[in-house]
Amino acid sequence: MSDLEVLSFTPSAGQYAWTFGGAEPVARVRPGTVVQLFTEDCFAGRVRSERDLVSEVCEFPYLNPQTGPFYIEGAEVGDTVAVHFVEIEPARDWAASTTVPLFGALTATHLTALLHPALPELVWIWELDRGARTCRFRARHGDFTVDLPMDPMHGTVGVAPANLEVRSALVPDAFGGNMDTPEMRAGVTCYLGVNVPGALLSLGDGHARQGEGETCGVAVETAMNSVIAVDLIKGRPCPWPRIESDTHIISTGSVRPLEDAFRIAQTDLVQWLSGDFGLEAMDAYQLVTQAVLSPLANVCDTNYTSVAKFPKAYLPPGAAMGGAHQRLRELAGEYRREVG
Amino acid sequence: MSDLEVLSFTPSAGQYAWTFGGAEPVARVRPGTVVQLFTEDCFAGRVRSERDLVSEVCEFPYLNPQTGPFYIEGAEVGDTVAVHFVEIEPARDWAASTTVPLFGALTATHLTALLHPALPELVWIWELDRGARTCRFRARHGDFTVDLPMDPMHGTVGVAPANLEVRSALVPDAFGGNMDTPEMRAGVTCYLGVNVPGALLSLGDGHARQGEGETCGVAVETAMNSVIAVDLIKGRPCPWPRIESDTHIISTGSVRPLEDAFRIAQTDLVQWLSGDFGLEAMDAYQLVTQAVLSPLANVCDTNYTSVAKFPKAYLPPGAAMGGAHQRLRELAGEYRREVG
Amino acid sequence: MSDLEVLSFTPSAGQYAWTFGGAEPVARVRPGTVVQLFTEDCFAGRVRSERDLVSEVCEFPYLNPQTGPFYIEGAEVGDTVAVHFVEIEPARDWAASTTVPLFGALTATHLTALLHPALPELVWIWELDRGARTCRFRARHGDFTVDLPMDPMHGTVGVAPANLEVRSALVPDAFGGNMDTPEMRAGVTCYLGVNVPGALLSLGDGHARQGEGETCGVAVETAMNSVIAVDLIKGRPCPWPRIESDTHIISTGSVRPLEDAFRIAQTDLVQWLSGDFGLEAMDAYQLVTQAVLSPLANVCDTNYTSVAKFPKAYLPPGAAMGGAHQRLRELAGEYRREVG
Amino acid sequence: MSDLEVLSFTPSAGQYAWTFGGAEPVARVRPGTVVQLFTEDCFAGRVRSERDLVSEVCEFPYLNPQTGPFYIEGAEVGDTVAVHFVEIEPARDWAASTTVPLFGALTATHLTALLHPALPELVWIWELDRGARTCRFRARHGDFTVDLPMDPMHGTVGVAPANLEVRSALVPDAFGGNMDTPEMRAGVTCYLGVNVPGALLSLGDGHARQGEGETCGVAVETAMNSVIAVDLIKGRPCPWPRIESDTHIISTGSVRPLEDAFRIAQTDLVQWLSGDFGLEAMDAYQLVTQAVLSPLANVCDTNYTSVAKFPKAYLPPGAAMGGAHQRLRELAGEYRREVG
Repeated sequence: MSDLEVLSFTPSAGQYAWTFGGAEPVARVRPGTVVQLFTEDCFAGRVRSERDLVSEVCEFPYLNPQTGPFYIEGAEVGDTVAVHFVEIEPARDWAASTTVPLFGALTATHLTALLHPALPELVWIWELDRGARTCRFRARHGDFTVDLPMDPMHGTVGVAPANLEVRSALVPDAFGGNMDTPEMRAGVTCYLGVNVPGALLSLGDGHARQGEGETCGVAVETAMNSVIAVDLIKGRPCPWPRIESDTHIISTGSVRPLEDAFRIAQTDLVQWLSGDFGLEAMDAYQLVTQAVLSPLANVCDTNYTSVAKFPKAYLPPGAAMGGAHQRLRELAGEYRREVG
Repeated sequence: MSDLEVLSFTPSAGQYAWTFGGAEPVARVRPGTVVQLFTEDCFAGRVRSERDLVSEVCEFPYLNPQTGPFYIEGAEVGDTVAVHFVEIEPARDWAASTTVPLFGALTATHLTALLHPALPELVWIWELDRGARTCRFRARHGDFTVDLPMDPMHGTVGVAPANLEVRSALVPDAFGGNMDTPEMRAGVTCYLGVNVPGALLSLGDGHARQGEGETCGVAVETAMNSVIAVDLIKGRPCPWPRIESDTHIISTGSVRPLEDAFRIAQTDLVQWLSGDFGLEAMDAYQLVTQAVLSPLANVCDTNYTSVAKFPKAYLPPGAAMGGAHQRLRELAGEYRREVG
Repeated sequence: MSDLEVLSFTPSAGQYAWTFGGAEPVARVRPGTVVQLFTEDCFAGRVRSERDLVSEVCEFPYLNPQTGPFYIEGAEVGDTVAVHFVEIEPARDWAASTTVPLFGALTATHLTALLHPALPELVWIWELDRGARTCRFRARHGDFTVDLPMDPMHGTVGVAPANLEVRSALVPDAFGGNMDTPEMRAGVTCYLGVNVPGALLSLGDGHARQGEGETCGVAVETAMNSVIAVDLIKGRPCPWPRIESDTHIISTGSVRPLEDAFRIAQTDLVQWLSGDFGLEAMDAYQLVTQAVLSPLANVCDTNYTSVAKFPKAYLPPGAAMGGAHQRLRELAGEYRREVG
Repeated sequence: MSDLEVLSFTPSAGQYAWTFGGAEPVARVRPGTVVQLFTEDCFAGRVRSERDLVSEVCEFPYLNPQTGPFYIEGAEVGDTVAVHFVEIEPARDWAASTTVPLFGALTATHLTALLHPALPELVWIWELDRGARTCRFRARHGDFTVDLPMDPMHGTVGVAPANLEVRSALVPDAFGGNMDTPEMRAGVTCYLGVNVPGALLSLGDGHARQGEGETCGVAVETAMNSVIAVDLIKGRPCPWPRIESDTHIISTGSVRPLEDAFRIAQTDLVQWLSGDFGLEAMDAYQLVTQAVLSPLANVCDTNYTSVAKFPKAYLPPGAAMGGAHQRLRELAGEYRREVG
């Protein structure tokens, strides 16, 4: 008989969080727990057709609703929360993407302030075929359609920030948040340093897929039914979010300008190779230089996110982050055998 | 007999605010009130000699204590608070400056993450001669000393942020905050858009003087006895902090990278010339190009601050921000006659 | 009997070019020609052991020798040269990498000027096993070794610049040059807009492999025996270098800051989807957002290079750049059958 | 009887230089010579009315004509040329400014590539009153006019670049060039490190005045009659252009992003205080932090230029750059007494 602990949580209408920090926990979670949860899309579900313009149907700042926060029992400043994504599955057979006035990478914005008027505001409704695992794009002008592979992910996952701050769920930073990296797919473990007691973990912003950089600022946005397994690494800080898959260790940096986001992720990766795998710093710098993959995550949000991926096959012996990914994989297997 | 309303406020030890947003108001202030207040230095008064290293004596995140917040009666989202600086006077005959490990413009930092070890951590104690209005620099190596003119200012003034956020008092952004511009001296009026009811105005971070850009990250830091006069401009938003002196209108932008801070300030100035002074946008762009002064404020904080100054002498007829600066100057005059 | 035209060229010691523009052509090449050539490594062959520090053995500005320039017959301003990489094969069984003082992404540099002393200067000699297709890393501290897959590429390929300029071979810009993208491997076609009569194509800087971003500034550097097939697309400009493989169309941007390099590459890709494949601009923006891959190329050179890759499988019907890649593939096949 | 050497040079129509480097010298100049010269405006004199749009009347790349280059006798790599501006006087009673499509700080550009169409292209003709020393702005929409003070300067002054390069006269970089700083007015001395024998000094791009940052990309452009006095500092390099006035020493940095331009200028200033005035590096960092003025020069050109000004009144004893400014001031005095 198993002692597997499973929690199910679907937020009620008024129960979403719009910030990291500053929201009351919706539940307490013991390390080693599997959580089944629902996340609404980044539009709070209000963009449902090509006529639903964000500037008309959405109500600022009530964008990017987060499911949580979950109070992780025992989590203290200086620990790290490990979140393993067991399943990320679209909850609908459609998704929406849009342009948003003065938002995105190829337009004047509120921060890259120029004298241009905004680009056109448009909505695209994507059809999701969950059996075939495809997302169908349909051009707004002309009749071109194409099916892209479904690759579900969470754009946003994070904990309460440090320095007494409360941050909008639209922001990625050292606490995680709206990093918008396609690496955050089922099968990976995300590491987040704890800044406040209980960590206050939340997540949302499901994407049926997105390109690297999220160029126009909005991915293929949809609600998700997700399952996560949560662990706690005591006494080990994690300054910037890290991700581990079966094949790669992955550092992230979220800041502007983009070269500083790159520097954070690459420096963290060099230090990870030193810390967990014993390489001298300059040797790690050399090896990272020749083996790293550096896909961009987002170049549109309040902070830009750069990712640095290193193949495990080229690592010296050692265990990343105390072996948490392997433990959570096993917990996910147990969950699948008993529940999934 | 005057109806001048004067409020005096000196925070008790536990009464400082460490954030914009998220702190309870210390007092309610009616528009038209003059407030006499004390601000502690950015080190919370803990750096008192060359032996007091920030990394040893300060307790993160308890840096840059703010006096306030003041609840401005009647302030609603979409209004603008006008803060006129009547007096900014050093409260001590000394000030401190330091280098802080991995902070500053000419060093690797936590955000410009490089593989270098930190630069040396040093403290300089500056002597303030309030009669002669000078600040004396004394080199730590060798015996060079020099007197620089005292030019007291507040590095930090702001209101609660939008988007449900709470931000560290070390951050400058659209809500104001830690802009660190030497333009914030006695005689100017600062305009801050209101994001929450009551605005929640606070200020601190007195500098006996600083250079433009605050290169090493720390100015000539000291406690201040300051007097401000507060007004409210109903029904008029102010997206980024503006400043008005007797001779200039001044826009600011606070973001990274620095060119975006420049763009925000310059675009705001172009729009100010259009909005309050009736110039067509392209004409305003041309006139700003030839007449603007663009001193940097800080290139070291979480966001960088760029300033755009336009001489009033070259403006078309019109009143900036509904004439609030002139009204507050008169209020300041009344205060000086009756109290000062 | 074939009319295949094959040119062989190995530079003599004094025959390398150190700039794009400003060098006399070494040969004239008719479109449709296959060129067999040798390129020296970026150190001009002077770093041969762990004792050969760049700062001691190399002679500035004689770095990154280029083979060429080749005068492409008939090439005029407004045309585009298409260069297909038939083979890129290391000419030695070893390669060198180094750190260079004040150069690289995770250090102070001459342009990111800080007060830190330079990081340590070190050389790593990599063993190349051309049979097994591996590059062996050997740590300088400790005895860790690991084999990475060989993935040979040219870091530098370009034409003479516009605007009467002559640029160092260390610079990537609109004319191509030192882009340092691992996408420049055998099997792809590179498109370069012509700025001067004859285009003046040259290439060099062979890498047995490199990571994305070239973090420390230096890849696994080695001499190459390469074969290219050259074509000319008359009357069609190409503002920034493009690359085409059998599976992807790829735009590049090379500039600082990195977000502008990203914007150039992504905007060019959007315009490519509009121009050659008939998508309306906003539809192209949306589709690129969801399907693009955005690996970084270099974040260390004078300009940073960002890459935007779009899978051909998701394109509307159409031929990229007039079908040049397909024609050059066939020419390469002919070469292999007759010569290779 | 004086041995004052005076050279007069007015370029013929075909005699302008369009690059730094790559142009034959127009004259040889001995150190200690005074040169009277004429510079055409940045439009090569082609914008003469509101109907003369740059995109129609100018012929790329023939923009920003330079007078020179002058071969400075005895100048070798590792020396520094000192150029004192004795007079800079508008040669016409009008000047032109414009917007240029996809150029400027508050618009999408070829490098900040966005999906917006270009802003409107407009010309403003400014009236220059050389007696009253004013420049009259006349709005294109409405009838507003205003007189700004004349403050003549050269936007462009430089020498041939290092690294075998030839650069467009539109570019500012370590060799000087198109820095567009209002500090380059009569009375100052500009220091430029020598990269090739004879230095190959040229200048142009007269502005009757400009704001700091040259926001729209174009100043109040006019032809100039200027007088310079030239000296050579043997055996002393100057990595980035420096300027000295009677009251300030001034460092410059020209690169993107803007924070790196800031870092270069401020680091150079710290090193200047150490090198010529004996302050220890961290003491210089502290003193610069509190005393520096940091006006922007341009945020629109190929590289952005940031300026760091330090008041001589606060310097330790010492002579900047070997006292060249004082010597050239005296030479200028001699010229005025004998010729001017």
